[in-house]
Amino acid sequence: MVVGVDFGTLSGRAVVVRVADGAELASAVHPYEHGVVSAALPGSDRPLAPDTALQVPEDYRQVLRQAVPKALAAGGVAPERVVGIGTDFTACTVLPTTADGTPLCELPGLADRPHAYPKLWKHHAAQPEADHINATARERGEPWLARYGGRISSEWQFAKGLQVLREDPETYRRTERWIEAADWIVWQLCGRETRNVCTAGYKGIHQDGAWPSREYLAALHPGFAGFVEEKIAHPLSQLGGRAGRLGARAAAWTGLPEGIAVAVGNVDAHVTAAAARTVEPGQMLAVMGTSTCHVMNSDVLADVPGMCGVVRDGIVPGLWGYEAGQSGVGDIFGWFADTATPAAYAAEAAALGVDAHELLSRKAAGQAVGAHGLVALDWHSGNRSVLVDHDLSGVVAGLTLATRPEDVYRALVEATAFGTRTIVAAFEDAGVPVRDVTVAGGLVRNPFVLQIYADVLRRPLNVIGSEQGPALGSAIHAAVAAGAHPDIRTASAAMGNVRRDVYRPDPGRADRYDELFAVYTDLHDLLGRGGSDALHRLRRIRNAAAAG
Amino acid sequence: MVVGVDFGTLSGRAVVVRVADGAELASAVHPYEHGVVSAALPGSDRPLAPDTALQVPEDYRQVLRQAVPKALAAGGVAPERVVGIGTDFTACTVLPTTADGTPLCELPGLADRPHAYPKLWKHHAAQPEADHINATARERGEPWLARYGGRISSEWQFAKGLQVLREDPETYRRTERWIEAADWIVWQLCGRETRNVCTAGYKGIHQDGAWPSREYLAALHPGFAGFVEEKIAHPLSQLGGRAGRLGARAAAWTGLPEGIAVAVGNVDAHVTAAAARTVEPGQMLAVMGTSTCHVMNSDVLADVPGMCGVVRDGIVPGLWGYEAGQSGVGDIFGWFADTATPAAYAAEAAALGVDAHELLSRKAAGQAVGAHGLVALDWHSGNRSVLVDHDLSGVVAGLTLATRPEDVYRALVEATAFGTRTIVAAFEDAGVPVRDVTVAGGLVRNPFVLQIYADVLRRPLNVIGSEQGPALGSAIHAAVAAGAHPDIRTASAAMGNVRRDVYRPDPGRADRYDELFAVYTDLHDLLGRGGSDALHRLRRIRNAAAAG
Repeated sequence: MVVGVDFGTLSGRAVVVRVADGAELASAVHPYEHGVVSAALPGSDRPLAPDTALQVPEDYRQVLRQAVPKALAAGGVAPERVVGIGTDFTACTVLPTTADGTPLCELPGLADRPHAYPKLWKHHAAQPEADHINATARERGEPWLARYGGRISSEWQFAKGLQVLREDPETYRRTERWIEAADWIVWQLCGRETRNVCTAGYKGIHQDGAWPSREYLAALHPGFAGFVEEKIAHPLSQLGGRAGRLGARAAAWTGLPEGIAVAVGNVDAHVTAAAARTVEPGQMLAVMGTSTCHVMNSDVLADVPGMCGVVRDGIVPGLWGYEAGQSGVGDIFGWFADTATPAAYAAEAAALGVDAHELLSRKAAGQAVGAHGLVALDWHSGNRSVLVDHDLSGVVAGLTLATRPEDVYRALVEATAFGTRTIVAAFEDAGVPVRDVTVAGGLVRNPFVLQIYADVLRRPLNVIGSEQGPALGSAIHAAVAAGAHPDIRTASAAMGNVRRDVYRPDPGRADRYDELFAVYTDLHDLLGRGGSDALHRLRRIRNAAAAG
Repeated sequence: MVVGVDFGTLSGRAVVVRVADGAELASAVHPYEHGVVSAALPGSDRPLAPDTALQVPEDYRQVLRQAVPKALAAGGVAPERVVGIGTDFTACTVLPTTADGTPLCELPGLADRPHAYPKLWKHHAAQPEADHINATARERGEPWLARYGGRISSEWQFAKGLQVLREDPETYRRTERWIEAADWIVWQLCGRETRNVCTAGYKGIHQDGAWPSREYLAALHPGFAGFVEEKIAHPLSQLGGRAGRLGARAAAWTGLPEGIAVAVGNVDAHVTAAAARTVEPGQMLAVMGTSTCHVMNSDVLADVPGMCGVVRDGIVPGLWGYEAGQSGVGDIFGWFADTATPAAYAAEAAALGVDAHELLSRKAAGQAVGAHGLVALDWHSGNRSVLVDHDLSGVVAGLTLATRPEDVYRALVEATAFGTRTIVAAFEDAGVPVRDVTVAGGLVRNPFVLQIYADVLRRPLNVIGSEQGPALGSAIHAAVAAGAHPDIRTASAAMGNVRRDVYRPDPGRADRYDELFAVYTDLHDLLGRGGSDALHRLRRIRNAAAAG
């Protein structure tokens, strides 16, 4: 047996898995007591700055104390049968610690400093720092910038670290390690610092064996020159490797035997590839939820325009791991259902005992493709791939007085499918083949959405066979770390779970979607690639109006 | 005293007005018993063809019998004090009659023929005929086409007449007169046929003293060659002129004295110019309701791109009367309120005792201009002026997950204001000065909308002072026909009613709107003038999907 633990945005989930075949014997969830800290620090009423999103490290430890024993008990699994534990985390979620891994927020006198806490992935207050990082990299022609689609995100390690330095130099000075929570939790388990190659590559700026130079960092801020060597630099560990052995303290927390293997840390989306059996070159995994993350291995290194990142060994050792993304997917559907479902529809949904999504899906499902006359651009949260432009915004075109809510809903679903097709095309146009597409994430429960994706992509869709993909993926990594399987690819084949060709494209619908996709591409390129700067002008006007 | 009668889409309204100062002493409304006949003919269950919209002539006579005496009684006005009656009608509402003015649908054996009934302005089933009329006119280089923005509407006399010939040759053959309801009602009043210059110009194709040639008509259909000379041709009467004297029969219907002056027929929007005191060159009147009709006199004849029509003497004698239009205005706001107001807003509106429009307006009213980050194209019903393209459709750009219903509502209101600004600019760019803008119609009761128009247009807005502009305008025409005033311009000055500068532009908001209007124009030209054919492709895809 192995245990996988997935640390999400609001809770942690432990699953107990059989090494032989990946059977999930039991699982348990433990919510974080403090959730996402964005209004005020615990015990304080001082408001935090806008776009701040912090967490409390003790909440993570509680998952180990609560969810792991509960899962073991629920499965009736004797702890001594467990040979390893693996973890995955949201990313980039990053925190400052002392040299022994103690979070700064746990030190006397620092609990009231926001910058002493972990910054959650969706902490978006470091945009000025990210802008500065990108502008300086462009000016200096830093070679690594192209690996990130030309843009380092405000969500990532360097932007967040520079924000600490600028806004709280004292906390920055006391930061002895600036570490991903993915690696910090492993440190908690095995008592020694490790750094995984995945977050170093995708969320840090580690490429071709090197970090950004001291000169570049000094150009950002004189005090930032030593950021890498003082707070980040550490030998990197391969995924699937063993970070260490479970220490006495963590063994006591979890009820697991001291000394079992602890897997190297990992990221939720990337570790899911093992669970979904998408670890071979050309197997694209789309983790579809509020947003979509695409991860894919390849033996080809190419400049694919607008990728979030390409990292050697970034998903499995020996291959190039690509990551792409769509910044808005399920949250666009949610926004529409929340703000545009009329009262009569809400009443109808209530009478049927379904939610607005289900009602809109039912009403839209029977339509002939294109009958609504609409095409939308799915840029309500900007465009991550392939345009890498967060100042874009959403568009709906083709409206008439006969347009009904379900028409717009369907057009928004289609727009996100067109966005995925655009990403697939970018890979293939760059010479990186996409062999097949597998979906995971919350939207796997939505057949209306997935059938549209199959029709739009003109490909059958595989669907992950597990309801807890990241935790299963972590368990698979634990099995490799424990030596139960020789490598991730073998372990994934044995323990992963996928249903193949669950959604098949209909040729007639696919033909019609080719026509609509051509219109989408026309508007995508026109409004997204500079043919018209209307959306950027709207954003500037909006920002000026908001600034008064 | 004079009586004005306005024949609308669903009812007729009579108003009794004092000749000296235009004081409205009383009014009365009478709804049409059969309203708009679009499902089946009265007494029949045979379904009518799609887009059919007919009316029943007797319903019009009932307005004379009911509303006129009621208005007289309500005002305590002795009938013998009334010196004239004037009427206006929706247009083009057109019907087939015998040589004595009897509607064909009232003849024995013809009551079950749809084509024997008046075709209401919004009868849209003659689009194939309109397309044929336009294509043939373009091929032959017919000189009159430019006076109509290059496009004769399916709503007008020739398209509707050609439809009768094609679909019911027997009814066409028995049609001795093909006459606007505006002229037919005058015939009912005074017992003799007249034809007004306004509908002949705007809804017929009468330009520079001539109708389309027999050769052109024969090219449309051999049987149509004599359409003008057999069914339409008649000396035209100037607006404000006396069509005749009230006959005994109509005197009995109305209770008015036999022999009083009956004014030449007119169109509701155009006659409102007299009521709103917008009869001098450069005074634009915008009649704003579900759609907007702009009428304006000028002493300049120019090719203004995308006008609905320019007609000599078309609004007042001696000037060029221009008509432009926006096909969707209030009905776009209504569509949004009906289909996109979420349940929570509906509940809030109910609690406040207001409708969705009022709630959305209140929520949107306080916004800084541009703060919503949106711009919309108001083409939900196509674009009448200046693009003259009914295959366009609406667009909303700039959407984010923070976009609220009131934001989109405001953007739609702004889009219609930008549409008006585009029309004003087209006049001025063509050398036809627009001196001032006055609004009439149902939307005068909406200060939220009108303040946005003032800010967008950078002009103060005048507002008509009467709640029944067309009926008051008809009464003014009656006063001229009766000789109480020498001409329309003098009568309008004495009897019309306008409040000047009710809405004044705020310079700060107007500056911000200049920026948003520039974005609107960018998208307007890109999507409306051929930079991208996305909207036309969407329409073709939609039509193909609808056709199965």
